[in-house]
Amino acid sequence: MASATPVPPGSHITICEVGPRDGFQNEKTFIPTAKKIEIVNALFASGLRHMQVTSFVSPRAVPQLADAEEVLAGIDRPEGAFVTALVPNLRGAERAAGAGVDAVHTVVSASETHNLKNVNRPVDQSLSEFEAVFATLDKAGIAIEGGIATAFGCPFEGIVPPRQVARIAKRYQELGASSVSLGDTTGMATPLTVQAAIRAIRDAAPGLEIHLHFHNTRGVGLACVMTGLSEGVTHYDASVGGLGGCPFAAGATGNICTEDLVYLLQESGYESGVDLDKIIAAATLTQEVIGRPLPGQVLKAGPRLKRHDPDLTVTAAG
Amino acid sequence: MASATPVPPGSHITICEVGPRDGFQNEKTFIPTAKKIEIVNALFASGLRHMQVTSFVSPRAVPQLADAEEVLAGIDRPEGAFVTALVPNLRGAERAAGAGVDAVHTVVSASETHNLKNVNRPVDQSLSEFEAVFATLDKAGIAIEGGIATAFGCPFEGIVPPRQVARIAKRYQELGASSVSLGDTTGMATPLTVQAAIRAIRDAAPGLEIHLHFHNTRGVGLACVMTGLSEGVTHYDASVGGLGGCPFAAGATGNICTEDLVYLLQESGYESGVDLDKIIAAATLTQEVIGRPLPGQVLKAGPRLKRHDPDLTVTAAG
Repeated sequence: MASATPVPPGSHITICEVGPRDGFQNEKTFIPTAKKIEIVNALFASGLRHMQVTSFVSPRAVPQLADAEEVLAGIDRPEGAFVTALVPNLRGAERAAGAGVDAVHTVVSASETHNLKNVNRPVDQSLSEFEAVFATLDKAGIAIEGGIATAFGCPFEGIVPPRQVARIAKRYQELGASSVSLGDTTGMATPLTVQAAIRAIRDAAPGLEIHLHFHNTRGVGLACVMTGLSEGVTHYDASVGGLGGCPFAAGATGNICTEDLVYLLQESGYESGVDLDKIIAAATLTQEVIGRPLPGQVLKAGPRLKRHDPDLTVTAAG
Repeated sequence: MASATPVPPGSHITICEVGPRDGFQNEKTFIPTAKKIEIVNALFASGLRHMQVTSFVSPRAVPQLADAEEVLAGIDRPEGAFVTALVPNLRGAERAAGAGVDAVHTVVSASETHNLKNVNRPVDQSLSEFEAVFATLDKAGIAIEGGIATAFGCPFEGIVPPRQVARIAKRYQELGASSVSLGDTTGMATPLTVQAAIRAIRDAAPGLEIHLHFHNTRGVGLACVMTGLSEGVTHYDASVGGLGGCPFAAGATGNICTEDLVYLLQESGYESGVDLDKIIAAATLTQEVIGRPLPGQVLKAGPRLKRHDPDLTVTAAG
């Protein structure tokens, strides 16, 4: 088993904002394209540079993201912006290549049952079909992040063995992916499962960059980031305001929240390049557009050194 | 600076349930004594053994806990139960001694401004007055946990220097406290402030047991537990359902949630003696009595291996 070297204090941690894709796709009411563009621009203005902006899926399957091309054409791309989009198949890859993204994110589930339900084919068939997808992307000079859904557990099968995750990661590496993203699809990641999956991939596919995509469904999303950091992982997905979720986990939150992650990293001695006040402003805008309270905590409580009115009185503090 | 030895995997971690005190005290509607007793008994039945059951404060200041004696007389105490109560002064210590608690929790703030607002006297006056309090408790054979509020930051003064926390800890040790509890009163604890406070106390007051009391106000409560574990701390306060809060942080959650902490510890290779299903049941009961949704996540999402209906369909999983 590979040993773990924690990320040294002071290091840069990359946050990939996934709210415009993983968050928006779950919204029932269509968010006007201009509002999507406004939110993406506010997110870039906070200092975020990596963003999964949309998805090239069938507009019938995900009507919310039917405006993928328009959103990509409308956004400002600051220097250093790295724009990604989810692509499920060859048709999506061709659309992504035409729309000018820097990278695409593909998805296969580590669990057979989940892959069958998600894309109606076995895991190995998904991986085989990626060959043509990756060839098309490669020709267009587009990087590939190989997404592995249910990497820390499956809502149907339960435990997902780390070797299953590692096998898919190795296959992704052979196909030419520059990174894999371990998706905590229904919020089953825990410190021990995160550690096991990372170590299994490092053993099976040395040199492959690992990205972590946690949901906060059971409250331990940021604790799993702490585990990722102690295992040396420097790239985390997060969603503005904690937007997003999973159709299976009623009442549960979605992705870990970008502002809360920015706050955690800053207060743990890491550098993300994101301005906390500006990302809170972007979250406030997102919450207004979405029209309901989002789960982010820093959004509600504000930065830690925000002072209170000294005329308030206190009782029985704990 | 003292070096840190992480808590070894497999170790027992003590969770002190503070919901019946820190949680209930913030509820506007009086919770009937019989309901309080029912909740405390359900919490003990989950396997929890350490519990801050009530507070011996003035019934005028905290009417919710005016039934302290009745609650303590009415609860079942399983073998190994360690019952504590908050005590602000000599009168409270006398009541606690009469009511038969195993330990008391006292409070002084690390910040002068907060202590003035909380108990209307300077920090050093609070500490001096503890002499008579501790003598009374010592005579009754009651252990003392010295609480330090605003240990990780003050909503009025901002940053609280670790040496200030360490000075109070040392004074507590001289007065005879067996442990100190670092209170994250308004949710300002972060991995770096937690690490700094622990190390400062270990330098100033070697041998003094450190307990950590985090709030999840800014979403990083369980991440701070991860830091505590890597610094070797084995005792954490938590509140069933995440009940509680602070009158200052509108919209923010209170203490870290007991079920979520039990889940995190279990899934990080530690042992707390608490049964996850039973603590979820206790949280469900608490939520019914309180009459509004509590912030706990595991309470909403359930244990991680709870399976979903295989007939459900999935789309665009991330």
